[in-house]
Amino acid sequence: MPYVSFLSDYGLFDGFVAACHGVLLCRAPGVRIIDVTHLVPAGDVRRGSVVLAQTLGHLPPAVHLAVVDPGVGTSRRAVAVATPRGFLVGPDNGLLPPAADALGGVRSVVALAVPAEVPATFHGRDVFAPAAAALVAGHDLAALGAPVDPAGLVRLPAPVMRPARPAVSGAASPTAVEIEVLTIDTFGNVQLAAAADLLAPAGVAPGRTIEITAGRSVATGLFGITFASVDPGEIVVYVDSAGLVTLAVNRGSAAQRLSVTTGDIVRLAVADGDISTAAGGAKNR
Amino acid sequence: MPYVSFLSDYGLFDGFVAACHGVLLCRAPGVRIIDVTHLVPAGDVRRGSVVLAQTLGHLPPAVHLAVVDPGVGTSRRAVAVATPRGFLVGPDNGLLPPAADALGGVRSVVALAVPAEVPATFHGRDVFAPAAAALVAGHDLAALGAPVDPAGLVRLPAPVMRPARPAVSGAASPTAVEIEVLTIDTFGNVQLAAAADLLAPAGVAPGRTIEITAGRSVATGLFGITFASVDPGEIVVYVDSAGLVTLAVNRGSAAQRLSVTTGDIVRLAVADGDISTAAGGAKNR
Amino acid sequence: MPYVSFLSDYGLFDGFVAACHGVLLCRAPGVRIIDVTHLVPAGDVRRGSVVLAQTLGHLPPAVHLAVVDPGVGTSRRAVAVATPRGFLVGPDNGLLPPAADALGGVRSVVALAVPAEVPATFHGRDVFAPAAAALVAGHDLAALGAPVDPAGLVRLPAPVMRPARPAVSGAASPTAVEIEVLTIDTFGNVQLAAAADLLAPAGVAPGRTIEITAGRSVATGLFGITFASVDPGEIVVYVDSAGLVTLAVNRGSAAQRLSVTTGDIVRLAVADGDISTAAGGAKNR
Repeated sequence: MPYVSFLSDYGLFDGFVAACHGVLLCRAPGVRIIDVTHLVPAGDVRRGSVVLAQTLGHLPPAVHLAVVDPGVGTSRRAVAVATPRGFLVGPDNGLLPPAADALGGVRSVVALAVPAEVPATFHGRDVFAPAAAALVAGHDLAALGAPVDPAGLVRLPAPVMRPARPAVSGAASPTAVEIEVLTIDTFGNVQLAAAADLLAPAGVAPGRTIEITAGRSVATGLFGITFASVDPGEIVVYVDSAGLVTLAVNRGSAAQRLSVTTGDIVRLAVADGDISTAAGGAKNR
Repeated sequence: MPYVSFLSDYGLFDGFVAACHGVLLCRAPGVRIIDVTHLVPAGDVRRGSVVLAQTLGHLPPAVHLAVVDPGVGTSRRAVAVATPRGFLVGPDNGLLPPAADALGGVRSVVALAVPAEVPATFHGRDVFAPAAAALVAGHDLAALGAPVDPAGLVRLPAPVMRPARPAVSGAASPTAVEIEVLTIDTFGNVQLAAAADLLAPAGVAPGRTIEITAGRSVATGLFGITFASVDPGEIVVYVDSAGLVTLAVNRGSAAQRLSVTTGDIVRLAVADGDISTAAGGAKNR
Repeated sequence: MPYVSFLSDYGLFDGFVAACHGVLLCRAPGVRIIDVTHLVPAGDVRRGSVVLAQTLGHLPPAVHLAVVDPGVGTSRRAVAVATPRGFLVGPDNGLLPPAADALGGVRSVVALAVPAEVPATFHGRDVFAPAAAALVAGHDLAALGAPVDPAGLVRLPAPVMRPARPAVSGAASPTAVEIEVLTIDTFGNVQLAAAADLLAPAGVAPGRTIEITAGRSVATGLFGITFASVDPGEIVVYVDSAGLVTLAVNRGSAAQRLSVTTGDIVRLAVADGDISTAAGGAKNR
């Protein structure tokens, strides 16, 4: 396992990422580094956790270094986590558990020792990268710190997904669902916190026209296959490459169109005009 | 040939690029990856094709993975192209041919098989990267799909370059040329779709003062050697590192100064005051 | 020494960085490249020099390629510099000396030969990368050009740090210091050109409340250990990971809060209410 993957909110403007690369290369000379992203918004632990969880499964077995750490230098713990498919190293603030789950679950955890003499603001370079280097160089997890109860790892709240009243404009709709916006990618695609099969009971399925309510705005989109399933400028609902229901605008930004951001609640229901197909009943228009 | 180069419009904000790196590293463990750029504007096939064509010639022999693919998941073909100096893998939407030409021309093409079970929105990870990995691992091109007629590859329209009426303000100018803006780089340098030797017949040559007409605005710049051939804030016309005539502002942005964007037509002519030198005639001022 | 590090102002939007990688890989096939950053603002030699000097010490021994070169193609010299811990290659415009100092000082310098036939605008690709490749491949420095007097290297002016009159609002303050803003990182943290021990005589030390004057604005911040030493939105003064006194806003931007930019002068003094602790005297409120 010669790989270390690396995600952070350090940005690409400074030398911070390179300094961490340097520490890895000095301490584990044969290591190969895979940069996941360093453009996690500053301190956005939730965003970091989502990107990490959805990306690591496509990487070779590795030590995964992840640093989004607004509490750096405080009493928040620094941890290394063993999973069946690699290690995770980072702060104990909710960043790592979703990725650990994606890699097969948490096997064991240690709290990393933080030397008193290191600066309190760059644990990526001075604590986490050295730990990742030690692991990739073959040191035992147990040598890095004291064992910690895996159940005690900080976890972020699970995102919302719940049944909802039928949409106002679609009384005949069998049901609706309210789902939290999990994340928004660089294209403005709005990824919801729901796998496709969880929405089928509500009739929200491929081929249907979907009514999308976000705040006060209501829009409709086809549940299609890909961006170009709809005309440019139109909304498409689709199952994205992570298996989650996602909203996009073909050649545009769904986040802008719907004015939604991460953590917002979006309601999906089968649209009026599509009821006959969805529920086998009469159209109500 | 242990290299794969990789260009896309995936941006650096998400884990998309890393997921493709992961697929390459899992399937071709010894591969070394050269990221060309991932900041091609979303869906801008033309911009991707220009960067690709002007960069690949400086890389070692490689499999070149290129994904700017607004039609992902539709019936547009996925292709792999053999050239005398490496392979190109990507969508058949005009992105690859200029680069293939720069690498010595298209030798053969196959249409990649797209497995029915892969998501329709991330062929970079699920179709193109696996094909690139197979090629760099030594598999035959023919094993990746059915042969395709190279003449059938989609090509973007050739950019405009044509003689023009003499500039209004320079009646004594021997001639003028109208040229399309091929691309604009991160510094705002405006690269025109013309090699320097094509402009010499119009008198547009080093040492001359050039009248530049873009839309309603008219400016002048020295045909110099480098940015600092003119004072800060002044316009310079020069032959750029790709061999094309380019407009820059020393320590500024020519794109902003001239209010031009890719695809615009710019007219170049020898400026009035420079006619005596250009045409050997009398100054008309 | 198989490493080349690479810093530039080329940005990540074009293929310029990749072209340089290509040249390095073609000429020194075994080389491993560490990108320091390519987002130095265009032509900002000072910013490049600061990032370089603060990052290289964390990298393995390497040839360090650095290109922030607004005078490319003019008579400014292209140089390669030997230090006890690696080589530096780049323009002779002030970019390299601080990094050379950080690597143990300048041992010797050569002026790189610039072939007449190379384009005048991309010496990164055509002059500096080939020189870096030659050095990493084991060629002698002397083979790359004529020796140059190290004392003749262009150096940027040293940043300002000086004693100042006591702050107006704190007459009892023992003294104050005026310090230049050395650089500002991607988080808006304001790094001052002073190591912590130089401020202690003015009473500016951990645990104290510091009065910060920048232009017409006056603010106070705790001299703490890390960002979270203060509440979100509050200012903290701390010793950063490069050992320099720095101003931050916990979960915010100190550069925005204080409206300062690189090169500005900031005055630090012990705040009124903190005088008793600072100077052992009576509070004057």
